[in-house]
Amino acid sequence: MCDLLRINTDRGVMIGDGKSRFSINGKPIYHFVGTSTFSEYTVMHVGCVAKINPEAPLDKVCVLSCGISTGLGASINVAKPRKGSTVAIFGLGAVGLAAAEGARIAGASRIIGVDLNPSRFEEARKFGCTEFVNPKDHNKPVQQVLAEMTNGGVDRSVECTGNINAMIQAFECVHDGWGVAVLVGVPHKDAEFKTHPMNFLNERTLKGTFFGNFKPRTDLPNVVELYMKKELEVEKFITHSVPFSEINKAFDLMAKGEGIRCIIRMEN
Amino acid sequence: MCDLLRINTDRGVMIGDGKSRFSINGKPIYHFVGTSTFSEYTVMHVGCVAKINPEAPLDKVCVLSCGISTGLGASINVAKPRKGSTVAIFGLGAVGLAAAEGARIAGASRIIGVDLNPSRFEEARKFGCTEFVNPKDHNKPVQQVLAEMTNGGVDRSVECTGNINAMIQAFECVHDGWGVAVLVGVPHKDAEFKTHPMNFLNERTLKGTFFGNFKPRTDLPNVVELYMKKELEVEKFITHSVPFSEINKAFDLMAKGEGIRCIIRMEN
Repeated sequence: MCDLLRINTDRGVMIGDGKSRFSINGKPIYHFVGTSTFSEYTVMHVGCVAKINPEAPLDKVCVLSCGISTGLGASINVAKPRKGSTVAIFGLGAVGLAAAEGARIAGASRIIGVDLNPSRFEEARKFGCTEFVNPKDHNKPVQQVLAEMTNGGVDRSVECTGNINAMIQAFECVHDGWGVAVLVGVPHKDAEFKTHPMNFLNERTLKGTFFGNFKPRTDLPNVVELYMKKELEVEKFITHSVPFSEINKAFDLMAKGEGIRCIIRMEN
Repeated sequence: MCDLLRINTDRGVMIGDGKSRFSINGKPIYHFVGTSTFSEYTVMHVGCVAKINPEAPLDKVCVLSCGISTGLGASINVAKPRKGSTVAIFGLGAVGLAAAEGARIAGASRIIGVDLNPSRFEEARKFGCTEFVNPKDHNKPVQQVLAEMTNGGVDRSVECTGNINAMIQAFECVHDGWGVAVLVGVPHKDAEFKTHPMNFLNERTLKGTFFGNFKPRTDLPNVVELYMKKELEVEKFITHSVPFSEINKAFDLMAKGEGIRCIIRMEN
């Protein structure tokens, strides 16, 4: 974790002189989370730039810059399922699908998708999910449903919702003795993680991750290489591609939800 | 974790036939937690027996059978501090002293003992503690005191009190990005572990352990070997040694607390 460049949504200026680099009609345009990439050219701190393979198509690999890498890394770098193991993924939005894909790449043989929205299940099979649980279909806690499906608990779980109850479920559904739960979702600021501490004494591990524990400058180029070597199909993460002039359509699609993942194309 | 032989304080009988093996005046004597060792000879499940070096003095190495191994293993097997790192130990009873000893064996260079009872500090130096914090001496949370002592947080913490607040403090005092907290103490059955989940997203890890993740049958003989090779001085864990006929004196010493660690000698 880089103290200097850590995400700071309030800063909005360059670190060197505390000023922004753009303006319109004399009013400053601030730098959102240190990158400000909604323009063809930009100015950013050298620590925020990663050099990737120049052959990589920018209109595809741009999706690797945040949520998708986070989900992939949560499985590959943090949960680290062994070959043949069972992984539960909580939340099948873009991050959860990437976590499922990461679990598949890592060699998990059962990948159980957990989501309240069953319309996401069929597509999630493309990302490696082999089974699904909709908590609404059961009148017992999802932890118990998963324990019954897996002879006591899953080997790994990855939580990609940000919902505090899902976080607790994701921890409580892993197997005693070796289970590892990984929290990826960003929680509400007033959320409180509560569990009986005996759950820890039974040799479980709870980890959180930020950006899937990837170091952006050194690791992102390698994630792009996974795509270039066709080990990671980025295209399936893209449901829509709209030009900049229709950016509001993209926001509408996102607001409608249901797993829309969209590229906004810059135009000259 | 062995499902069959897992500690069960309610069972009190042999697994094979659901009966006890001893009686007095026709009343059964039950098998406490599967061992029933308050006698010169006993009957126990083969899975509860570990064969140790026959040269080992039983009146010394018996202390390795529970708390001391738990504390040692919590540091050596679970927290795994790197050489030169900083470890905080919460609670300086027998388990915490063993955790400090384990951190020392693992190569930690700063071992900070945290306890409400400063009379334990001087002796804890013998077990590797280099610094001490008494939370009562500060009017800010102990997490903050430790963060200020260590430029942002300790590398590892080991909680050996069973107190839920100490558990939360032990988790919240580790450094973002790599910190690992290990829970060893047995919590009250109504205790609830509460923390803001953002503490996990900052790439911290929370683990629990049972018996220091040692597998008793295969690993305990090696812990005894540590003693035989003089890498682990068992004697310093023993403060009193009383004969069986004075067993109540041992319980009195324990009830008085202040870190009493006692051997009860069997006699013919």
